[in-house]
Amino acid sequence: MARLRVHNVTVSVDGFMAGPDQSLDHPLGVGGGRLHEWVLATRTGYRLMGLDGGSDGVDEDYAAQGEVGIGATIMGRNMFGPIRGPWRTPSWSDSDQPWNGWWGAEPPFHHPVFVLTHHPRPSVTMAGGTTFYFVTGGIHDALDQARAAAGDLDIRLGGGASNIAEYLRAGLVDYLHLVIAPVLLGTGERLLDGDVAAGYTVSRMVGPTDVTHVEMVRAAA
Amino acid sequence: MARLRVHNVTVSVDGFMAGPDQSLDHPLGVGGGRLHEWVLATRTGYRLMGLDGGSDGVDEDYAAQGEVGIGATIMGRNMFGPIRGPWRTPSWSDSDQPWNGWWGAEPPFHHPVFVLTHHPRPSVTMAGGTTFYFVTGGIHDALDQARAAAGDLDIRLGGGASNIAEYLRAGLVDYLHLVIAPVLLGTGERLLDGDVAAGYTVSRMVGPTDVTHVEMVRAAA
Repeated sequence: MARLRVHNVTVSVDGFMAGPDQSLDHPLGVGGGRLHEWVLATRTGYRLMGLDGGSDGVDEDYAAQGEVGIGATIMGRNMFGPIRGPWRTPSWSDSDQPWNGWWGAEPPFHHPVFVLTHHPRPSVTMAGGTTFYFVTGGIHDALDQARAAAGDLDIRLGGGASNIAEYLRAGLVDYLHLVIAPVLLGTGERLLDGDVAAGYTVSRMVGPTDVTHVEMVRAAA
Repeated sequence: MARLRVHNVTVSVDGFMAGPDQSLDHPLGVGGGRLHEWVLATRTGYRLMGLDGGSDGVDEDYAAQGEVGIGATIMGRNMFGPIRGPWRTPSWSDSDQPWNGWWGAEPPFHHPVFVLTHHPRPSVTMAGGTTFYFVTGGIHDALDQARAAAGDLDIRLGGGASNIAEYLRAGLVDYLHLVIAPVLLGTGERLLDGDVAAGYTVSRMVGPTDVTHVEMVRAAA
């Protein structure tokens, strides 16, 4: 069966996946942008930004792995955008369009993306094969829809922290690639809070670069 | 001035410094013993256990650094032993002596050790130059006493998690060597909880072995 995989999710040494006060200027909260410097420096990071170049090596190998064999993505509302509550055109937008994600007219997914939300909204088809579906039925419903869309391919699970934590608690995540960056945030959204990681085990941990890569899988029962 | 240093403090990937239910059989709580496998494998770990052998390399370099230039140690009651409340002979002890720490008749400190407690107790002099002093006046009092005892040397700050967190929050720690072990505990005592690490910064992070070493210092104001 298709696996539910998490890749490139980066936390600070004190365990925060995003800083406080997410906004248009600070998609990962204040200070949270530093978490992702490692991936932006890789060849995959460059490619996702539409650039040539970037580094090869262990970081690149991990970054690239997140793109392999994925047929659908699930993400939480907080990863899709900074808007809370009902869908609307952001007051700071110079467009009359509703918020369609951080990724511009041609998002880098190129497959169906299921956005978990409490607020219904029609699906939006973007250039390049990405369609955003807005799922109000909860995490199991989103996973069922993503499985149907992905066929034989795997499903990638995106943030925010609370979205990943909810799938972890339900035991639905098959593989989690966590990255620990040399950053202290002091506050923000913690990923592995309380007993979120109970039932999982570390299968590999390597850190020859600026960051440490931790691979987690479900623990043997 | 003498520095207050923390060394070899090991947390799980989910941030716990000890598992739940500390006891005689589980000094680091259930599951917590796995955290320290890395240090027990080093030459310094072997030496502290009274054995020859052990590994050289990065882990050993870090482990050994914690013994260099230290003239006094401060630790919390929870590192000194599993007893809570007033001092007494443990019911599971086969001795009629009060609890004198985990380390036997000749503890590996060989200098004055200040144990923070709410319960007064006369000092205890052990073989090999270690004297345990029991400090009821709080963290600043313990630091003053340790500075006086250490002279020109530094002071090493020991656990438990709440003890280190209290000194971090007060901005009194000059250097913290944190180790992240490839373990998930799911519950226990978290070290870098809330904003404990606010005011600190990561100066170095390396992980070529099974664990990742993180060095933290006070952030520039």
